[in-house]
Amino acid sequence: MAIQEVETGATSWWEQFPPGAQRGLVQAGLEEFAARGFAATTTRDIARAAGLSPAGLYVHYSSKAALLHHLSRAGHEAAMAVLERVRERDLPPAERVVKVTHDFAIWHARHHLLARVVQYELKSLDAAGYAEIARLRRAVQDGLAQEVAAAVASGDADVPDIVGVTRALLSLCVDVCRWYHPTQSQTPEDIGALYGTLAERWLRR
Amino acid sequence: MAIQEVETGATSWWEQFPPGAQRGLVQAGLEEFAARGFAATTTRDIARAAGLSPAGLYVHYSSKAALLHHLSRAGHEAAMAVLERVRERDLPPAERVVKVTHDFAIWHARHHLLARVVQYELKSLDAAGYAEIARLRRAVQDGLAQEVAAAVASGDADVPDIVGVTRALLSLCVDVCRWYHPTQSQTPEDIGALYGTLAERWLRR
Repeated sequence: MAIQEVETGATSWWEQFPPGAQRGLVQAGLEEFAARGFAATTTRDIARAAGLSPAGLYVHYSSKAALLHHLSRAGHEAAMAVLERVRERDLPPAERVVKVTHDFAIWHARHHLLARVVQYELKSLDAAGYAEIARLRRAVQDGLAQEVAAAVASGDADVPDIVGVTRALLSLCVDVCRWYHPTQSQTPEDIGALYGTLAERWLRR
Repeated sequence: MAIQEVETGATSWWEQFPPGAQRGLVQAGLEEFAARGFAATTTRDIARAAGLSPAGLYVHYSSKAALLHHLSRAGHEAAMAVLERVRERDLPPAERVVKVTHDFAIWHARHHLLARVVQYELKSLDAAGYAEIARLRRAVQDGLAQEVAAAVASGDADVPDIVGVTRALLSLCVDVCRWYHPTQSQTPEDIGALYGTLAERWLRR
């Protein structure tokens, strides 16, 4: 499963981790958490999938919770980076909203396993880890809401509810990770193109 | 958590089960699966939460998998009933699509715990159970796609991709169960009203 995740990504999320034991643990943690859920996965399962002894895992992570927290933080930072790259571009605000929607949809299809673990295991983070991740999530939501508000202020968009539409845009993209599968005929790019058009329709006056 | 689920529903999903041990098991199964996931939940956990002995559980269900299958089927049938109720109404097709979106969004907020278990534990069904549930899911998707196609054929709607827009409408509503929480200021009815408007925008020419 991790191999599909890599192959469907134009730029690989894995490349941020140095090759070797740690990258292996991140891949193994992702596969095991995605397959059976955090609560039913043991550190032994993860170590075995990474070809390490349990002691080898503890060199890098103090617990499976620490590995989940690392995955969750790296996943959220990657999503934040998608938003930041678009915000740095010199586009009218309404087009930035459309482009973020397009790019988020593609990201959640390409990285569907990572996104599933990140989205559905928030409840498994400890309190400090959750607080950190909640700040990142809030930053993504606020950043996109600012773009929607700017689009409305520019006169290029008219929406019934800025916060509600922002949440709906993010929700639409996040849920791609639930239903997308690489064997489907729709590619991540097809989904991105459709979702960009759908975002346009939500914004247009 | 089950109490919130009941209280947020105008008509309670629980009422289809006769009061007593079986309703208690359905409630307990839902709470336990929602809290820790199917794989990490034991029949003993469920029996304890229902105030029964493990033997008391086996009177009603042969395994925790049988209980999950029952929850999943009842949840999907309830979602199908939402669609059917709207399809029976004498409304122009585009308005039917808007009304289904409105009602599905409300349903997924009111029954968010049930919907989470149903949506995120499909992988935990056995092959025969999955095949049955997949047929129900296909029927919901096909039924809504027929309404979208009818709206386009009537001239009241214009969408870039009937199948893609149908999937996006369902996806938008399903994902409400991930982020909705009864303590939020938005009520299920607020979400339904917004999502009806957003569906309208996707359809309009």
